Amino acid sequence: SLVPFFSPRGIAIIGASADPSKLGYGLARNVVQCNYQGAIHFVNPKGGSLLGRSIHTSIADLPDPVDLAIILIPAEGVLAVLKECAARGIHAVIVASGGFKETGMHGMDMEASLMQIATQYGIRILGPNCIGLLDTHLPLDATFLPPPGPPPGDVAFISHSGAICAAVIDWARGQGFGLSRLVSLGNQADVNETDVLAPVSEDRFTRVLTLYLEGVSDGLRFVNEARKITRRKPIVALKVGRYPSGQRAAASHTGALAGQENAFNAAFRRAGVIRADTSEELFDWARALAWSPLPKGRAIAILTSAGGPGVTAADALEMNGMSLAVLSLETRAKLGQLLPSAASLNNPVDMLASASPEQFASCLQVLLADPGVNGVLVVTPPPPMHTTGAVAKTMIPIIHNSEKPVTIALMGERLIQEAVEHLRAAHVPEYRFPERAASALAVLAQRAEYLQQDKTSKIDELAVDKSSVESYFKSHKMKSGFLNAKEVSLILQAYKLPD
Amino acid sequence: SLVPFFSPRGIAIIGASADPSKLGYGLARNVVQCNYQGAIHFVNPKGGSLLGRSIHTSIADLPDPVDLAIILIPAEGVLAVLKECAARGIHAVIVASGGFKETGMHGMDMEASLMQIATQYGIRILGPNCIGLLDTHLPLDATFLPPPGPPPGDVAFISHSGAICAAVIDWARGQGFGLSRLVSLGNQADVNETDVLAPVSEDRFTRVLTLYLEGVSDGLRFVNEARKITRRKPIVALKVGRYPSGQRAAASHTGALAGQENAFNAAFRRAGVIRADTSEELFDWARALAWSPLPKGRAIAILTSAGGPGVTAADALEMNGMSLAVLSLETRAKLGQLLPSAASLNNPVDMLASASPEQFASCLQVLLADPGVNGVLVVTPPPPMHTTGAVAKTMIPIIHNSEKPVTIALMGERLIQEAVEHLRAAHVPEYRFPERAASALAVLAQRAEYLQQDKTSKIDELAVDKSSVESYFKSHKMKSGFLNAKEVSLILQAYKLPD
Repeated sequence: SLVPFFSPRGIAIIGASADPSKLGYGLARNVVQCNYQGAIHFVNPKGGSLLGRSIHTSIADLPDPVDLAIILIPAEGVLAVLKECAARGIHAVIVASGGFKETGMHGMDMEASLMQIATQYGIRILGPNCIGLLDTHLPLDATFLPPPGPPPGDVAFISHSGAICAAVIDWARGQGFGLSRLVSLGNQADVNETDVLAPVSEDRFTRVLTLYLEGVSDGLRFVNEARKITRRKPIVALKVGRYPSGQRAAASHTGALAGQENAFNAAFRRAGVIRADTSEELFDWARALAWSPLPKGRAIAILTSAGGPGVTAADALEMNGMSLAVLSLETRAKLGQLLPSAASLNNPVDMLASASPEQFASCLQVLLADPGVNGVLVVTPPPPMHTTGAVAKTMIPIIHNSEKPVTIALMGERLIQEAVEHLRAAHVPEYRFPERAASALAVLAQRAEYLQQDKTSKIDELAVDKSSVESYFKSHKMKSGFLNAKEVSLILQAYKLPD
Repeated sequence: SLVPFFSPRGIAIIGASADPSKLGYGLARNVVQCNYQGAIHFVNPKGGSLLGRSIHTSIADLPDPVDLAIILIPAEGVLAVLKECAARGIHAVIVASGGFKETGMHGMDMEASLMQIATQYGIRILGPNCIGLLDTHLPLDATFLPPPGPPPGDVAFISHSGAICAAVIDWARGQGFGLSRLVSLGNQADVNETDVLAPVSEDRFTRVLTLYLEGVSDGLRFVNEARKITRRKPIVALKVGRYPSGQRAAASHTGALAGQENAFNAAFRRAGVIRADTSEELFDWARALAWSPLPKGRAIAILTSAGGPGVTAADALEMNGMSLAVLSLETRAKLGQLLPSAASLNNPVDMLASASPEQFASCLQVLLADPGVNGVLVVTPPPPMHTTGAVAKTMIPIIHNSEKPVTIALMGERLIQEAVEHLRAAHVPEYRFPERAASALAVLAQRAEYLQQDKTSKIDELAVDKSSVESYFKSHKMKSGFLNAKEVSLILQAYKLPD
């Protein structure tokens, strides 16, 4: 079970160090400073004290309870420590240490020995070569990253790259959203991306799961596991390639790569996983999915104080597969009463540059009440006569009271900061450019359609013609390192995945 | 001639107002505060004084020189003022006032009368319904936008939307680049997007032209004019659609729209204009084009301190049509001397998380010296042991001394601010995510290939089979408001544009 990783009653940090330049210090500091409520034990054969606690010289000495050990000592010592953990009854271990598979043949051998011991003693391992995990609500920060950690929030992040975790935490802090749980998978000697899906999704604070993937180790299991979760919570994945030794640059395998990408797209579609193309999209979308109701269709109204931004937004909606809602006569009449005669009452609704915060709010309310409108995209450059902060504040209660999604494009940078702060605090997704706000609405629609379709279709577990795939792979291995588009298509068929 | 718009010896502001809530005040304030060195005259029948200057009651009274008048009075009065300008010998007029074509039939009539007078008296008009223009180097700020204006810089912006100008100025200030000239075209009763291309490009401070277009009024002339300029300076255009009355939402004209978009793409390609898909790309690319040398090919080296970001960058390069450079044995040997044994010496070069500022700098130098490398993408999350500021500072002189482009992806938000500031001050293009830094390199390659191809191909003016197009349009008008894909194809052929 992975439960001890996510709610340990006590933790042992093996390799805790009093030297602030060591990662073993950073890890000890984070576990203490994060306000973790369970027992915290430091272990280092040198003994001494650290952060007001004495350091145990041996794992055998640790008092109960200890559910989770985090190891951050040189690779050579990890095997012996693992055995001591087993002897002490610890069955969940994070090996943060590097120096394993990622460093070559010798490391690969050590990683194999590591897994041999783990299997023998029934230990689950996260890592090696990872930065650990954190839960902002438990709370627990079992990483060695420099503080501050991420603000508490509702987006979980599971990653094949530790370095990206550091960037994402910093990015979240700057972009105004919080994280619930974060898991760095490292080399995945044992626990992989599929294993952590369920435990992370079971966290009640997590509203959306985001994944940074460099591959999927067992596609069929991933699809089945992810599909169970996406019926309840959205998953957004950024899947990047692998470029060992610049291989792709040397040889041209475009066909094979395209086929592989098609297979990933098909698997994600089947699993209800939303695929992001860029890191920026991953979190642009996650915020909208975490904070917004889902639209009942793709017809969107644009509310703006300027013509050009309205046109840009309309383009962006169409580029993202959305449509411009046709406003009812009643809606247009109501807007007409609220706005000057030169305003445009069609969609995009252009209130003119003079639009007041009250006009923003009341027009937004009218648009949300129109049954032909499934959501609203508000687009505004810095208004010449009012502060964007006031505009944001008056709209927030209306957005909170609506069952339709609203995304906001605040165009500019410094003049719109006050609005940005209000909207972030209120969990209203805001973006700097209309294109990004439009793509967020499109993802909400995609999610709504997936849930709708799932409700109406017969739910079947993914079955696969395993023998044909296995025999295919056996014969294939003899030929070359890549599949061509036709071969991929055959395998997709065996998995009953759309091509 | 449009010269008086861009280097007037004296300016008259007609409608200057002492009331700070009026746009006529904002305009007067900007012209005075921008440090414009020519003569400044205020005109308002009420007289009085403003910003320490007396207000003239009549245009006829103004002393020499007055090359440019800026009108910001209610639309009804503009026609009479225009005649007075003519009588006073002013032949360049910015009509900032709204209330013309954009407001309906009556405004349309007034705009026609405006043009009648302008033609009769040989006056060139920018606007109406525009926010004016500015030149940060002359300097001249002839807009009524709230201060501060944009920082001086090398990116010019020409726009069909006034509201977007305000956002772009604010965005430039926040994103760390400066503007050279900015022109808001408004209703384009006279001066249009093609007319201003040459005068803006002749500015010696302008290194790249950016356009926000809602259409092109004379495609053939635009292509010919733009093509002359793009041989010297890059043009990047964001072309958005037009959605009068939510027309597109009501009817499905997908085929026609796709055809129209193909025509724009073909025209831009022919003109050497780089087309951006989003507002964000427009300026992401402009910065790179303004500040970077052009690559001699598409083979890029990635320098990073972490595996995941390197993989993401490699993906992003391939997605943007670039390739991973194959590093020479010599380069790899040199990198090997600079880096620990666990580092990856292949492309992406992963220096490991411990990488020091000196390692960043010396590895960058080695990569730039490899003849098989056409440019470098540096990707770094916040380093655990060093400041990103120090990393940025040591790389800057190497980037400045290289004839190959380098773009930098600083992953994170707050921890990387110091690096952002150093790089912006040094005019090194930096981005938050690898995907955007990769797309900037791809645009530099596109620009290099255009110039190369232009050098080797015979230069011919674009000729068109006008009679066949004209007769086609005459017969077509009878049928419907849209062209289908086949019809667009016929017209493209007549224009000798690739389909």
